[in-house]
Amino acid sequence: MTAAAHAQTTGAKTTYDLGNAVELVSKEEGHRQPLAPEFVSLEDFSPLEVAYDFGRIRREDIEAGPRSIWRYKQLLPVPSNVDEHPNTEPGCTRLVRADRLAKALGVKQIWIKDDTGNPTHSFKDRVVAVALAAAREFGFKVLACPSTGNLANAVAAAAARAGWDSVVLVPSTLERAKILMSAVYDGSLLAVDGNYDDVNRLATELAAEHEDWAFVNVNVRPYYSEGSKTLAFEVAEQLGWRIPEQIVVPIASGSQLTKVDKGFRELTQVGLVEDSPVRIFGAQATGCSPVASAFKEGHDVVQPVRPDTIARSLAIGAPADGPYVLDVVRRTNGAIEDVTDEEVVEGIRLLARTEGIFAETAGGVTVATAKKLIEAGKIDPDQETVLLITGDGLKTLDAVQDKVGPKATVAPSTEAVNAALGL
Amino acid sequence: MTAAAHAQTTGAKTTYDLGNAVELVSKEEGHRQPLAPEFVSLEDFSPLEVAYDFGRIRREDIEAGPRSIWRYKQLLPVPSNVDEHPNTEPGCTRLVRADRLAKALGVKQIWIKDDTGNPTHSFKDRVVAVALAAAREFGFKVLACPSTGNLANAVAAAAARAGWDSVVLVPSTLERAKILMSAVYDGSLLAVDGNYDDVNRLATELAAEHEDWAFVNVNVRPYYSEGSKTLAFEVAEQLGWRIPEQIVVPIASGSQLTKVDKGFRELTQVGLVEDSPVRIFGAQATGCSPVASAFKEGHDVVQPVRPDTIARSLAIGAPADGPYVLDVVRRTNGAIEDVTDEEVVEGIRLLARTEGIFAETAGGVTVATAKKLIEAGKIDPDQETVLLITGDGLKTLDAVQDKVGPKATVAPSTEAVNAALGL
Repeated sequence: MTAAAHAQTTGAKTTYDLGNAVELVSKEEGHRQPLAPEFVSLEDFSPLEVAYDFGRIRREDIEAGPRSIWRYKQLLPVPSNVDEHPNTEPGCTRLVRADRLAKALGVKQIWIKDDTGNPTHSFKDRVVAVALAAAREFGFKVLACPSTGNLANAVAAAAARAGWDSVVLVPSTLERAKILMSAVYDGSLLAVDGNYDDVNRLATELAAEHEDWAFVNVNVRPYYSEGSKTLAFEVAEQLGWRIPEQIVVPIASGSQLTKVDKGFRELTQVGLVEDSPVRIFGAQATGCSPVASAFKEGHDVVQPVRPDTIARSLAIGAPADGPYVLDVVRRTNGAIEDVTDEEVVEGIRLLARTEGIFAETAGGVTVATAKKLIEAGKIDPDQETVLLITGDGLKTLDAVQDKVGPKATVAPSTEAVNAALGL
Repeated sequence: MTAAAHAQTTGAKTTYDLGNAVELVSKEEGHRQPLAPEFVSLEDFSPLEVAYDFGRIRREDIEAGPRSIWRYKQLLPVPSNVDEHPNTEPGCTRLVRADRLAKALGVKQIWIKDDTGNPTHSFKDRVVAVALAAAREFGFKVLACPSTGNLANAVAAAAARAGWDSVVLVPSTLERAKILMSAVYDGSLLAVDGNYDDVNRLATELAAEHEDWAFVNVNVRPYYSEGSKTLAFEVAEQLGWRIPEQIVVPIASGSQLTKVDKGFRELTQVGLVEDSPVRIFGAQATGCSPVASAFKEGHDVVQPVRPDTIARSLAIGAPADGPYVLDVVRRTNGAIEDVTDEEVVEGIRLLARTEGIFAETAGGVTVATAKKLIEAGKIDPDQETVLLITGDGLKTLDAVQDKVGPKATVAPSTEAVNAALGL
């Protein structure tokens, strides 16, 4: 049975149980429509976003909840029994007080939100878990995505855990390691002869054709993207229920940055935290920096680019949420900066060296951009700064392979070791 | 200043603050000696183990503690302010109710303790964190280890986070990925021309020569190994403060299995859980199964072997704690079994397919051994079973590379996708 069929059988006007979510709103002109697996407004052709009617939400109830993103289920578009279905239980990752990194960067205080601790080691587990919960409610039967890495892993793992079929589409040129990591969960992984743009277009066509396939980042995207708010929720709770002064967020499609902002605003709206300003900064790799360029040039629109960077998980040349990122960053008095691939690798190494955290290239972008923004006086060194580290270095080993290695190769003797270490 | 010098300057009889730990006891004859960075009894030449004088320990105090192994600090050989020093904050990993795996194996209930969520994605973060805390108290200045993988990552990361120097010794033939993962934290990684036995012997020599180097698994081993108890503590707390009925633990040196047993016994001793029997099962790869062989043949001693298995993190041919493993397994009415490399890969795939958890080869050993023990009627299918998944599949990708991959490579068209999926 397709999702559409499911909707029909349950009545003329279907009402879904998605918690406090009440409708979809178009981002441009605010047109409202019922909750459904749709992602673009047919009124103004802008993306649809979930709107809520929050009841009373208390810190105590959240704190008594599960150690996963479901503790925030009242703030997400998911059924109230969401945690009773098998899921990967993402979230509640570490917020690390990074004093050594702060010292290296010459600022007062830095916090690392370390999302490498998620089940498949990236923040994608958060958004996929929310997408799966909504997809189940809509009656979908198959979890699907186009991806070049982290999302493929997260979808394949989440579907396996839930007992769903999955269809994961990746470019056939993808690195062997990423293929293996997506294939091991035994869903339907298909290598597509084409680049990521081809794969993405194919996904949209397939979503239209297969009504029981939930492409997490296509037809259930409004629900999926809400999962990124949990980064904001966790940071605020881990800081003792307050909003940080400054935060640096990597930009791919731009969705994460806008949802982090939305998360902080919703916490304030429902009274879980006091209203206080947060400056939101965006980070891009120079090889794919359309949003940074638009910000610097004072534009409201984002000119697409052809990506060329080692930070592949951020390499979206035509970022869908780019304009909204510009709005958020300008409204919060932040900034957007970009860094070279060389700086990305240095960012990875700086974080590893100072805090023992091994980030993927996107994390290197965030750290290096923070460094650049500090040096330019844009990030205030006297205020705290949170850095979002959204993925794991084990997934992008190629980035560091020419830069790190043994100090020396020695004979198995104490003399040889001492000599190599200059002792 | 060396550790020995540090001890001298603080008085004739040094007392260290290691919490409730009071002395070291030899495992064979129970000789007692003061807490110190020593690992073998000079009385009976058996390994030394930490003994405690536990005061009153309450569930509420633990539950109010940090979300890391430090919530159990009263049960570990660490100073009471241990969590005030920068550390990787390992532990509090997921305990996953694995209903799909249980169904596949034909048993009532399985729980997966998923230690891939630790900071460097293996249980080694637990033992290294305890070793570092004790080493700091003893006055050591450098964190060191011989290793072929997970331990190297954990030591290098923990030292970086703490601002310590590290010396990590690995065989020069180690896979490039493991070298990179150890090198990125920028300690002194040395590749040694020789096999792991050579590297291990070299570590013992260096520990004798450099009195301010704490080799976590050599001269501070009694403290290090206590970290594995936290697996038992967390499982019990996550089950609602009770001991599981059955548990399967992989065997390398055998230390982890004996410490899981010690952990459960200490919880009972201090009254945190009710006394109830737990059957402890051991898992080995057939290519390195000296403890399984001794168990099956009814021997009390373990005959060393030359390892030949893809489960390299378990490939210790002469396991130091082998005899103690035999004691625990026999006392608790468990069993020890071993599985072929082919079964290991099938174990990895079974866990990934059913629960969306991607384990390293050691995890494949645990799952495959559990399957074998269930089929042989040794694990009771009507009782619950906990499986310890101690490391991450991303670290042993080679094991699955010939077995998993895309279902098909297709042209970028819906027709091609549908045909490939038989739709």
